[in-house]
Amino acid sequence: MKVTFQIEGGSPVTIECNAGDNLLELARRANVAIDAPCSGNGSCGKCRVKLLEGDLETIRSRHISDEEYNEGWRLSCNSKVVGDCTVLVPDIASAYQSRMKTADLSSPKEIAIFEDAQANLKASGIEFENDFLAIQLEMASPSPDDTMPDNERLTWAIQEQLTDCEVEIPYAVMVKLASTLRENDFRVCVKGELRLGTFRCMEIGAYDDTQLVGCAIDIGTTTVTMVFVDMKTGKILAKGSSGNGQIRFGADVINRIIESTRPGGKKKLQDAIVKETLVPIMANLCKSSGVNARSILRLSIGSNTTMNHLLLGVDADPVRMDPYIPSFFSWKGLLAGDLKLPANPLAPVIIAPNIGSYVGGDITAGTLASGIWDKDEMSLFIDLGTNGEIVFGNRDFLMSCACSAGPAFEGGDISCGMRATDGAIEACSIDKDTMEPTLEIVGDAGQKCVGICGSGIIDIIAELYRCRIVNSQGKFIRESRRVARDAHGMGRYILAFAEETETGREVAINEVDIDNFIRAKGAIFSAIDTLLQSVDMTVDMIDHVYVAGGIGSGINMGNAVRIGMFPDVELEKFSYIGNSSLTGAYAMVISDQANEKTHEVAANMTYLELSTYPGYMDSFVAACFIPHTDARLFPSSIQD
Amino acid sequence: MKVTFQIEGGSPVTIECNAGDNLLELARRANVAIDAPCSGNGSCGKCRVKLLEGDLETIRSRHISDEEYNEGWRLSCNSKVVGDCTVLVPDIASAYQSRMKTADLSSPKEIAIFEDAQANLKASGIEFENDFLAIQLEMASPSPDDTMPDNERLTWAIQEQLTDCEVEIPYAVMVKLASTLRENDFRVCVKGELRLGTFRCMEIGAYDDTQLVGCAIDIGTTTVTMVFVDMKTGKILAKGSSGNGQIRFGADVINRIIESTRPGGKKKLQDAIVKETLVPIMANLCKSSGVNARSILRLSIGSNTTMNHLLLGVDADPVRMDPYIPSFFSWKGLLAGDLKLPANPLAPVIIAPNIGSYVGGDITAGTLASGIWDKDEMSLFIDLGTNGEIVFGNRDFLMSCACSAGPAFEGGDISCGMRATDGAIEACSIDKDTMEPTLEIVGDAGQKCVGICGSGIIDIIAELYRCRIVNSQGKFIRESRRVARDAHGMGRYILAFAEETETGREVAINEVDIDNFIRAKGAIFSAIDTLLQSVDMTVDMIDHVYVAGGIGSGINMGNAVRIGMFPDVELEKFSYIGNSSLTGAYAMVISDQANEKTHEVAANMTYLELSTYPGYMDSFVAACFIPHTDARLFPSSIQD
Repeated sequence: MKVTFQIEGGSPVTIECNAGDNLLELARRANVAIDAPCSGNGSCGKCRVKLLEGDLETIRSRHISDEEYNEGWRLSCNSKVVGDCTVLVPDIASAYQSRMKTADLSSPKEIAIFEDAQANLKASGIEFENDFLAIQLEMASPSPDDTMPDNERLTWAIQEQLTDCEVEIPYAVMVKLASTLRENDFRVCVKGELRLGTFRCMEIGAYDDTQLVGCAIDIGTTTVTMVFVDMKTGKILAKGSSGNGQIRFGADVINRIIESTRPGGKKKLQDAIVKETLVPIMANLCKSSGVNARSILRLSIGSNTTMNHLLLGVDADPVRMDPYIPSFFSWKGLLAGDLKLPANPLAPVIIAPNIGSYVGGDITAGTLASGIWDKDEMSLFIDLGTNGEIVFGNRDFLMSCACSAGPAFEGGDISCGMRATDGAIEACSIDKDTMEPTLEIVGDAGQKCVGICGSGIIDIIAELYRCRIVNSQGKFIRESRRVARDAHGMGRYILAFAEETETGREVAINEVDIDNFIRAKGAIFSAIDTLLQSVDMTVDMIDHVYVAGGIGSGINMGNAVRIGMFPDVELEKFSYIGNSSLTGAYAMVISDQANEKTHEVAANMTYLELSTYPGYMDSFVAACFIPHTDARLFPSSIQD
Repeated sequence: MKVTFQIEGGSPVTIECNAGDNLLELARRANVAIDAPCSGNGSCGKCRVKLLEGDLETIRSRHISDEEYNEGWRLSCNSKVVGDCTVLVPDIASAYQSRMKTADLSSPKEIAIFEDAQANLKASGIEFENDFLAIQLEMASPSPDDTMPDNERLTWAIQEQLTDCEVEIPYAVMVKLASTLRENDFRVCVKGELRLGTFRCMEIGAYDDTQLVGCAIDIGTTTVTMVFVDMKTGKILAKGSSGNGQIRFGADVINRIIESTRPGGKKKLQDAIVKETLVPIMANLCKSSGVNARSILRLSIGSNTTMNHLLLGVDADPVRMDPYIPSFFSWKGLLAGDLKLPANPLAPVIIAPNIGSYVGGDITAGTLASGIWDKDEMSLFIDLGTNGEIVFGNRDFLMSCACSAGPAFEGGDISCGMRATDGAIEACSIDKDTMEPTLEIVGDAGQKCVGICGSGIIDIIAELYRCRIVNSQGKFIRESRRVARDAHGMGRYILAFAEETETGREVAINEVDIDNFIRAKGAIFSAIDTLLQSVDMTVDMIDHVYVAGGIGSGINMGNAVRIGMFPDVELEKFSYIGNSSLTGAYAMVISDQANEKTHEVAANMTYLELSTYPGYMDSFVAACFIPHTDARLFPSSIQD
């Protein structure tokens, strides 16, 4: 029998299959992109498809209303094939866009945070300088009295401006040298890098084209964010983001590594991030900013260890297999041409160094951006991405670890999760008596509610607990018109009734959402706890807490403490520092010193493997309550 | 209207055209390969096609017999389109093979010459050593107690054997490092180059695969010859040759440059040499010798200035345009990957340096091979290719020049020309009284005659002149059963009657052949003459004459002198040194010293541009007789 996937905005794909085959797995096999952040365990409700012809054997899900079910909507992870059928697959690109994500420099607040971070780096003595040059040259044409061939003529002209340097002309420049010189009457601009006494030509073009562009990229497991930057002024020329195209191979790194070990898998995963994600964003940014791709002379990438292994097409299996030693920590030698990125093919690509299987370049770049490596005081740096990573220390030592928090902070695993754009509940308070909520919704006055973004979820859970609407296990214990239960008895809190929302669909948070979130925040707290224990330190020794990641600048640190996610320290010690991986990558692409410093910081950072650390699992289990089984750790929560 | 080219062994190609269009030009426009060494001037008779349907307006040619004409054979350069038609185009590959060419190391004699040249270089102090290494490594697997990632592990293992060196791991190696280590249980062999304290990894593979291969290539205008060589022992692993696929764009360099300046032309000409010529030969040699392409770690190329410009896809127009200054003389920086050659993509490709528009890397490589740069005595080095190039001098100075000799020495422009294989007349004497010839034919006893190879033509013309069968202008002045004339009165000397030959077609030399050859030899002699004059020297100051090129080891130097091709010096001063461009390329690919020496020799060589040199044209006109208008220059010829 066979299944046809009718892809919204694309061509249909048909695959042969057997009765009983899982529809989501079939889609993956057929290379059809279905959004499935929870990787097929039925909890996120994102992998919906619409049955157009034939039938499916589907387990009913709380994510599909009766009305939707009658329209044909099914969760593909819950559906088995019983005969020929055709299903409509929603466009995954729009699914990505609706995914909760921020920190892509799309708001003035984020830009301010980003600029602060750069100013702090400069204050730490990092010079924002690099060795890239655009050299304008005016040469004489060859004549019977001046018989120098083109490459020597160019070399001499460069050496007139850069005394005592060697000049390297690689093939990419050599092949167009003769025609470029003649088309421009021997008045040209050469771009390249001057290092260790050698000027390496990377591009030759018109005399007036002197733009030198850097490209900084944060490759998250879920979201990819990019900026183009003027390498001399530091000015941002363009910025953009999109979902990571690998998401159809699994929301988490482990599923993607497993996919990559299948025949042709490395290539598939590499294509998904390179061809389907980075190339389109870069091409768009070139178009929107008028940057010539050949003027992009350096790139830098902040990404976790799995992401950079898959990006390079390097075997990532060692990352997940005992003894959890990746193929590389720090590696220099990648060129844009190696990945066929739309940039100057000779442009070096800096990969921020990894320090372990689960603490990667996003964290080392982020640590650079946080500035904690330059302080005497003890700082905690927390990056909330698909995984949570923690760094603790000061200028004398840095310890780090990672925990698998799941996609909750980025809107996966939460039924009404969305990014912090118009319609998102970004903050919430609840009246303890009436149990009615007061919502802050992103957008103009009168904007109706669409869903919940990361900071909103923290607020809602904190308030539900403060009002004792849910207990410390996240189960509903009070009744109100806001508290509803489904056929299975599962409770939910309705933030906006269907008639009040933009979409006409109720916005609510249910026990599964809360449970998912409790496990995520428990993972974060127990990681912090274990890391502190490992160096014999306690919460009260923390002088600063830097929070980074896609959760957004709207995060209410007090509520994050009250639910037991962050350690209970004075609120003024907390700072949200945005997408620190991107900030670090930006610094590294412009600043040779930032680049060196990141490698130095990484080399001096100690990695703690939590999965084998005695006591971590106990700590995690203890943290899977609101706020914690040992509530004394959270006096702020108890005070309410 | 339209013409369809039915290509022997290929798919038909149809092109729109107008009445009066020249058929050869149409074929070129349609990218159909027709062998046309004389580039369409009607003299070589090679561009034959067979009319299958429709009609053509054709000027009758002496190259097509009546019988052939009736069968439909036409010269495409002589034919105009008058309506729709279909023609059969013979397979150009077989045309190449039948083209006269030798010096591809296919005979023991040539190999002996080749080995002699290497021995002489060694005697001159050139060490046959290079910096390429195959390093066998045995490493421990990662473990909880040994947490080094793969790239550091490899680096350390290499540094254990090469103390104090930096290790570079480029992307091509990095991408397969993890899987190669694990597939081989951490016992691997790494190949690469150790230069200036840095070992650059180029390949990683099985522990026992330690082969390091160099590839030396002579790219002639007509013929391409290649050897694979073991970079440690110097042993030849494989050898091969074929026609230069660019030949359909013209037999000489000027026509090819003109073709390359048309839209898309650079790419077309580059594809013709790279994709259609080098790639197939290399792939064949890999197959026949069992060499893994990734083990080819260095290539070197001897080629004339136009050939190396077209090879690189660099604008070659400056080569032919006043002031005749090419885009580069010496350029380092090419990698095999830049041209997508089937070799290690990181393998450097050495291009033997040019010294002028018409004295290129084939001559500098050949000069290295000749050894004249190491002698006190004055030597003349003559390379007889599609062009003729001359170098004169000793260890103190070297002068060089080039003349356009045409394809006569390589069998173009000669109606019965062929390579020195079975059936070729390689030597000839004629009885002055009976006018009957005695032929030496390549092959076993009883081998019948097929055509004439380069050395044969020299003998035949020398003997025809000695017997006064032709006069000093190459016109027939005696009659015999061997001398025939066609309808236009043009004389020919029949070397073998139709019934005596292998093919059933008469083998003869006619006045046009002789005229073509006289112009070729005149160009050579006048170039030598002018070069000597330019340094105020005379023929009697020449101590050695080294003759190189495809004319073959069978060349009778005495006869070459008698017809006024080479200066009249003692015969013992002459040596035939084979394909010196290939010999030089071979030395450069193995020996770092040979490579440096060639660049040094090139840098010190002076180039004389004959076309603008006063007196050259007069000298040429004077040399277009047998032996010369001033016969006193050739006492050997007068003595007969």
